[in-house]
Amino acid sequence: MKDRPERPKVVIIGGGFGGLYAAKALSNEAVEVTLIDRKNHHTFQPLLYQVALAVLSPGEIASPLRHILRKARNVQTLLGEVTGFDTTARRVKLLDGAELGYDYLIVAAGARHAYFGHDEWEGDAPGLKTIEDAVEIRSRLLLAFETAERAALLTGRQTLVNFAVVGGGPTGVELAGAIADLARLALAKDFKAIDTTTARVRLYEGLPRILGTFSEESSRRATQQLQELGVEVCTDSMVTAVEPGRIKVAAQWIAADVTLWATGVAASSIGKELGVETDRAGRVLIEPDLSVPGHRELFVIGDLSVLTDTSGKRVPGLAAAATQQGKAAAENILRDLHGDTRLPFTYKDRGSMATVGRHRAVAEFGNRKYSGLFAWLLWSVVHVFLLIGFRSRLAVMWQWVWAYLTRAGSSPLITEYQQTHSHATPTEHAPTPAGSKGAAVTKQ
Amino acid sequence: MKDRPERPKVVIIGGGFGGLYAAKALSNEAVEVTLIDRKNHHTFQPLLYQVALAVLSPGEIASPLRHILRKARNVQTLLGEVTGFDTTARRVKLLDGAELGYDYLIVAAGARHAYFGHDEWEGDAPGLKTIEDAVEIRSRLLLAFETAERAALLTGRQTLVNFAVVGGGPTGVELAGAIADLARLALAKDFKAIDTTTARVRLYEGLPRILGTFSEESSRRATQQLQELGVEVCTDSMVTAVEPGRIKVAAQWIAADVTLWATGVAASSIGKELGVETDRAGRVLIEPDLSVPGHRELFVIGDLSVLTDTSGKRVPGLAAAATQQGKAAAENILRDLHGDTRLPFTYKDRGSMATVGRHRAVAEFGNRKYSGLFAWLLWSVVHVFLLIGFRSRLAVMWQWVWAYLTRAGSSPLITEYQQTHSHATPTEHAPTPAGSKGAAVTKQ
Repeated sequence: MKDRPERPKVVIIGGGFGGLYAAKALSNEAVEVTLIDRKNHHTFQPLLYQVALAVLSPGEIASPLRHILRKARNVQTLLGEVTGFDTTARRVKLLDGAELGYDYLIVAAGARHAYFGHDEWEGDAPGLKTIEDAVEIRSRLLLAFETAERAALLTGRQTLVNFAVVGGGPTGVELAGAIADLARLALAKDFKAIDTTTARVRLYEGLPRILGTFSEESSRRATQQLQELGVEVCTDSMVTAVEPGRIKVAAQWIAADVTLWATGVAASSIGKELGVETDRAGRVLIEPDLSVPGHRELFVIGDLSVLTDTSGKRVPGLAAAATQQGKAAAENILRDLHGDTRLPFTYKDRGSMATVGRHRAVAEFGNRKYSGLFAWLLWSVVHVFLLIGFRSRLAVMWQWVWAYLTRAGSSPLITEYQQTHSHATPTEHAPTPAGSKGAAVTKQ
Repeated sequence: MKDRPERPKVVIIGGGFGGLYAAKALSNEAVEVTLIDRKNHHTFQPLLYQVALAVLSPGEIASPLRHILRKARNVQTLLGEVTGFDTTARRVKLLDGAELGYDYLIVAAGARHAYFGHDEWEGDAPGLKTIEDAVEIRSRLLLAFETAERAALLTGRQTLVNFAVVGGGPTGVELAGAIADLARLALAKDFKAIDTTTARVRLYEGLPRILGTFSEESSRRATQQLQELGVEVCTDSMVTAVEPGRIKVAAQWIAADVTLWATGVAASSIGKELGVETDRAGRVLIEPDLSVPGHRELFVIGDLSVLTDTSGKRVPGLAAAATQQGKAAAENILRDLHGDTRLPFTYKDRGSMATVGRHRAVAEFGNRKYSGLFAWLLWSVVHVFLLIGFRSRLAVMWQWVWAYLTRAGSSPLITEYQQTHSHATPTEHAPTPAGSKGAAVTKQ
């Protein structure tokens, strides 16, 4: 890249909340920033489940990183996959052999769901971390109904559609509630040979209550709200096996046409490549200033790191925490450059919320607790205004107003996918033989 | 399916304009209709190129067939793939062995682009017929720029990005103009290491002029408008070979990072399965009443058929023609049931239009010819109001107004695809081992 030796080079890995907000905080400062991500877009993960449930389309919750950062003259965006590091020579290695030098490195590669050491379950119980996950889950949900409709048309046989959501955290609660809404409202009039409202939606939580990070009052209310939507909330229910079409809860097999996974944390494998100390989930142990012990120039933030902050609390794996850490890491780099001492990180808890279906939710701000429609309105306002990009905000508000008025949601499309670009780097992407091979797949 | 022996069974194959409008025309009449399509959605093909160019998102130009037809009590929608027919026993065979009996059959399976007998070119020069094509083309266009940006960042080397569009019909003209807009406007500010406005866009037409179905005046104006956008219009230029990264025009090889194919007609192979007479393009020769000679109960319409109508003109392969034929086939079935004689089909030419970039176009209505902004406004109004579904109309108008004000277009996302659902039937789709195998692919 254009060498500006007089300006320190900062490389950021990952365009999620941590990496993106670090890049924004370094915008137009006296550093040369390169943001590397495997995808060309930032994904607003808190609304991913609405893409999975066909309420929003991918373009409404994702924006190209280089578009978000187009006004940051000192920030370059690079589509590529990081395969390793030389933390002594301070170089980042890319999949195709290219290398990038850095003076400061911020690693914010995130995490995926963990499968209790059974990664082989992932194919039958996908998690919801990316746009691709959401589109895949949407297809599975809709195709379960299409399959039942088809059986009813061709054989006259009615088959019950069963959905299972594993994990009673906010994502699991939101998925279960939204699936119930999809079956009760969005699809009810579209299917004529089956009654989609008879679909069973079960939410499984291994602990005694859902929303364990919330107050008991909030989890009790969320449970009530889920039950009002027809969701069966199964607590103290550990899932012990996943197979196509069924899951095992404790010792009992239960039919599940579609199983979704919303629990456990497995940090990105990039953490291991750093060759520094990690916990069992693969999260890097970091200092209060967010750097790695013995590497003041190397910051690891977001879900990829684990930290007990100055308040003595474990920093939670939330978008809000990653955002705050991204800003804090950037701030500490700038403090170095200005000769100031670094500041230790403290997570500011601005409250937590979880939606339950179309207009129910629970919300907590310190000791204040809300639930029902008011909490849902709070949630809507907060999330629309947290969304990246003004256009997206308007588009999402428009979509929600429309969905609210029509109860229709957006078009539940099932689209085909191709192998072309999986985990691709630009070189794989380019219209080369590889590209053409992939494209050929789409026409077979 | 629910047997109602007293009501004739009509099976419609294909949810494009022909099949969908046939189904609509038979809605709530005294027939039992089953509409079969491989996809769960109808695609508004005239706007596909805007999805390819990231101006619209798939959900804005496609709607689920069962949602469009939800109020037609006598119309069932079936997601499935037809593999053959028994026209004597009047049965349709599906991929998984299931069969459907019919009293009337309307086949509207459409066509793809033809490659002059070189189908192997398709991987390197995709056509634009489906949502999946559009998403694939969008990725290739954006990745060509990402690859150039990457080279500039890592090596400091500037590489020129070359695009080639083969075929000077309306689709080719619209693609070329829109690619020029993408490079000149939408992406210009997002890329910092390269100048996207230097990208070369070439449109190749084998005949002496583009828009051959329009007047010479209109094609001259379209050529001017394309040139104003920086598109190189190459007429009398036959493409004789396609390879990764380059194409051969006459005897000369020309660099093309992305090649798009927009010419030739190859009717769906389903036509051959019917065992009736077809032309070289595989189109079925039909009677003036749109039925197949010797099979009054079997109608073939749209791009899959070829007909010289009562006016002595060849019916064109346009959405408008397919729509009119769908209605006419349904009408003739109803006339049979009412004991009336069938009517021969006559194509009503309501005029033709082609857009050139963001606010240029050419339009012809009989002898009246328009071009420039006025033609583009005409085009916009007509196409928005032809769109299926009120929500889509508002969404698209909103998108266009926004794009017009901001010149931004919607988020140009590059998403990964997976093999999971290619050409799938519901049984393949269902969360069975097959489904999970596919899903596993997405996590490799």
